[in-house]
Amino acid sequence: MSKIWKLHTIAEAWGELERHLAPASLAVEEVNLAEALGRVTAQPVLSPEPLPPFARSTVDGYAVRAADTHGASESAPAYLKMVGEVRMGEAPQPALGEGEVMWIPTGGMLPQGADAAVMVEYTRKWDMAEIEVRRAAAAGENVIGVGEDVALGGELIPAGRALRPAEIGALAGLGILRVAVRRRPLVAVLSTGNEIVPADGQPGGGQIRDLNSWSLAASVKRAGGEPLRLGIVRDVLEELTTALRDALARADIVCVSGGSSVGAEDLAPQAIASLGAPGILTRGLNIRPGKPTIIAVAEGKPVFGLPGHPVSGLMVFGLVVEPTMRRMLGQPPAPPCTIRALLGRDLGSSPGRSDYFRVRLERRGQEWHAMPVLGKSAMISTLVSADGILHLPPETEVLRAGEEVEIALLEGGDRGGA
Amino acid sequence: MSKIWKLHTIAEAWGELERHLAPASLAVEEVNLAEALGRVTAQPVLSPEPLPPFARSTVDGYAVRAADTHGASESAPAYLKMVGEVRMGEAPQPALGEGEVMWIPTGGMLPQGADAAVMVEYTRKWDMAEIEVRRAAAAGENVIGVGEDVALGGELIPAGRALRPAEIGALAGLGILRVAVRRRPLVAVLSTGNEIVPADGQPGGGQIRDLNSWSLAASVKRAGGEPLRLGIVRDVLEELTTALRDALARADIVCVSGGSSVGAEDLAPQAIASLGAPGILTRGLNIRPGKPTIIAVAEGKPVFGLPGHPVSGLMVFGLVVEPTMRRMLGQPPAPPCTIRALLGRDLGSSPGRSDYFRVRLERRGQEWHAMPVLGKSAMISTLVSADGILHLPPETEVLRAGEEVEIALLEGGDRGGA
Repeated sequence: MSKIWKLHTIAEAWGELERHLAPASLAVEEVNLAEALGRVTAQPVLSPEPLPPFARSTVDGYAVRAADTHGASESAPAYLKMVGEVRMGEAPQPALGEGEVMWIPTGGMLPQGADAAVMVEYTRKWDMAEIEVRRAAAAGENVIGVGEDVALGGELIPAGRALRPAEIGALAGLGILRVAVRRRPLVAVLSTGNEIVPADGQPGGGQIRDLNSWSLAASVKRAGGEPLRLGIVRDVLEELTTALRDALARADIVCVSGGSSVGAEDLAPQAIASLGAPGILTRGLNIRPGKPTIIAVAEGKPVFGLPGHPVSGLMVFGLVVEPTMRRMLGQPPAPPCTIRALLGRDLGSSPGRSDYFRVRLERRGQEWHAMPVLGKSAMISTLVSADGILHLPPETEVLRAGEEVEIALLEGGDRGGA
Repeated sequence: MSKIWKLHTIAEAWGELERHLAPASLAVEEVNLAEALGRVTAQPVLSPEPLPPFARSTVDGYAVRAADTHGASESAPAYLKMVGEVRMGEAPQPALGEGEVMWIPTGGMLPQGADAAVMVEYTRKWDMAEIEVRRAAAAGENVIGVGEDVALGGELIPAGRALRPAEIGALAGLGILRVAVRRRPLVAVLSTGNEIVPADGQPGGGQIRDLNSWSLAASVKRAGGEPLRLGIVRDVLEELTTALRDALARADIVCVSGGSSVGAEDLAPQAIASLGAPGILTRGLNIRPGKPTIIAVAEGKPVFGLPGHPVSGLMVFGLVVEPTMRRMLGQPPAPPCTIRALLGRDLGSSPGRSDYFRVRLERRGQEWHAMPVLGKSAMISTLVSADGILHLPPETEVLRAGEEVEIALLEGGDRGGA
């Protein structure tokens, strides 16, 4: 089509947007650890104490002075004197003298004088007083030293980290029960169109229910933001401009869906352009679905004109709005969540365009098969049946059935561990 | 070691557990659509109306009677009579007669009599009354018919689906603002050990703070459950048994961490075994980390004895507790969320054992590199620095630096488009 030369790649559009938005721009707030899952750290968390605060055994066995086991072997064991037992949760007494050992459980505190532990498997208890040790221990062996895990003042968690269960645990372990995180970005969501009625309304002839503000609000939530649903705006330039100004005043990011096609009632570009400098940065992306996208910045805040088709709107949200939220939160880019699968049928694309196909994943034996979900991009049913997205970059014009392809999962998927 | 023959694979352990737990066992409740993200449908959602409720154009152009365009081409266009304009949100008037067309925007309602739309690109407007059409349209072309997206009474969303933004949008589009979902599983989390003090306490000699109940509670939340943190239990058989009975009475799933090593104060197996039939199903998994795991069922509820090491506890949570939650919610298994990367160093494993290595992902140019995070499994710092997990199955004993490996991501990662 005649407009193709004007379209921008996602990378171009992103580069332009990035220039206008400072990273980690959202304010800092403190939250309780119990509410901190998924929140993004605003600064590095330094350890207020060494971890562990005392040397601990990593095995069940005997605390020893490594020098006393020097040269011990199956054929020439060392015989050491048993002087007591380390109890969990207590500081062991007495200090270990030369030639002495103490029973120690996993996690137990090493007694003074000891510098290693020998696994119980390599020992034998001859009587209450004597232990046979059949293996030499090096100093530090089977022991975590003071501060070996995290040094006093060392960086426990970097800035810009979305807190996972692992970090939540680490913070609890150090007694840090309040965390400085970035405020969740407040994302205003508006739908435009004279044909749109609220989801709880009954559409008349030619009318349909507002769908996009719901799916986009849910996307905002899932990406760690707070949605601000501002309802439906009629296709009247003044009304749309007023609604956008209001949204811009209240939110950190504005998303307006619909109104950006080449149709007669094409007001969104005009309204967005009127919001102020620098204004529209990108109009039209060389992707399908998602071409009629507007990316703008006004009053230092990003404004997105998203396509009205539900499928296209969600696609563009994932490709540009979510990364924008991550940038404002100070999060580094994440590795994509993908799975390898065999393509179920041939797919083609136009040269110079990025195509995104929705696919359903089917497991057959050990392999995953990716079945393209066909159907017009206005269809809700294609949204519901897709598990992932297959990207055909501009340089790939055709993919054949049976080829191995990489599918970006629409949900996190099974982590399979941790 | 002498116990290796007793250890079970994850698949064996899971098979055994599955036999004792009915799927989709959690009660059904209704939630508002605005709160439904991530909740799991309890039954298929059927469409209360056909979607779309009227035939819509998918393009900007002209609504036509397909028969009138028969044989139209660049060299022999059809000339049709323009009788009006479809306005968004209104039922168009009048009905289209033979040889007539009407302007229609994307999403507009097809007038009576019309059965196709022609893209504006293939037309020319000669004057207010006549339109040149340079391409034949088949009946149904560029149109979504009544119920073509979702038929009246058709299945919009299957049972057992965790609702994503796409489904939230689809439900809004059909005016369904309340959804029947499974109750979130309530998962009790206890820590055992005489050495454990609460996270807000100051540990004395030989003591450490409770970490696992925090990281496990966060894992429960992330997996769609509701955590019930029941605190720390001392290593006294009676106290532990009482605490477990209480947890079993209150929660759907019980997780107790620590107390399952071969150490002197090894009370968890005894306490768990005393809870009732069928009791302990699996004791010891052939995985590392995670070997000292207990899987039991009592009073029809799953009870997990998780290893006390933070890294091991989270690993086993992901491998067995999270799938258990999914089963009780009625969710089918999900495709794993992975990324291909080049291994940063050689890794080895013992034969017959599944090894899980934590890795850090580094991007170099177009490639991801997986750098194994070394360190003892009691270390908190190894938790924080890992981005994903590399699984060495029992049949693989060594992986070489530079090999392409598949990494399971610890977080959902970047969806890149949704």
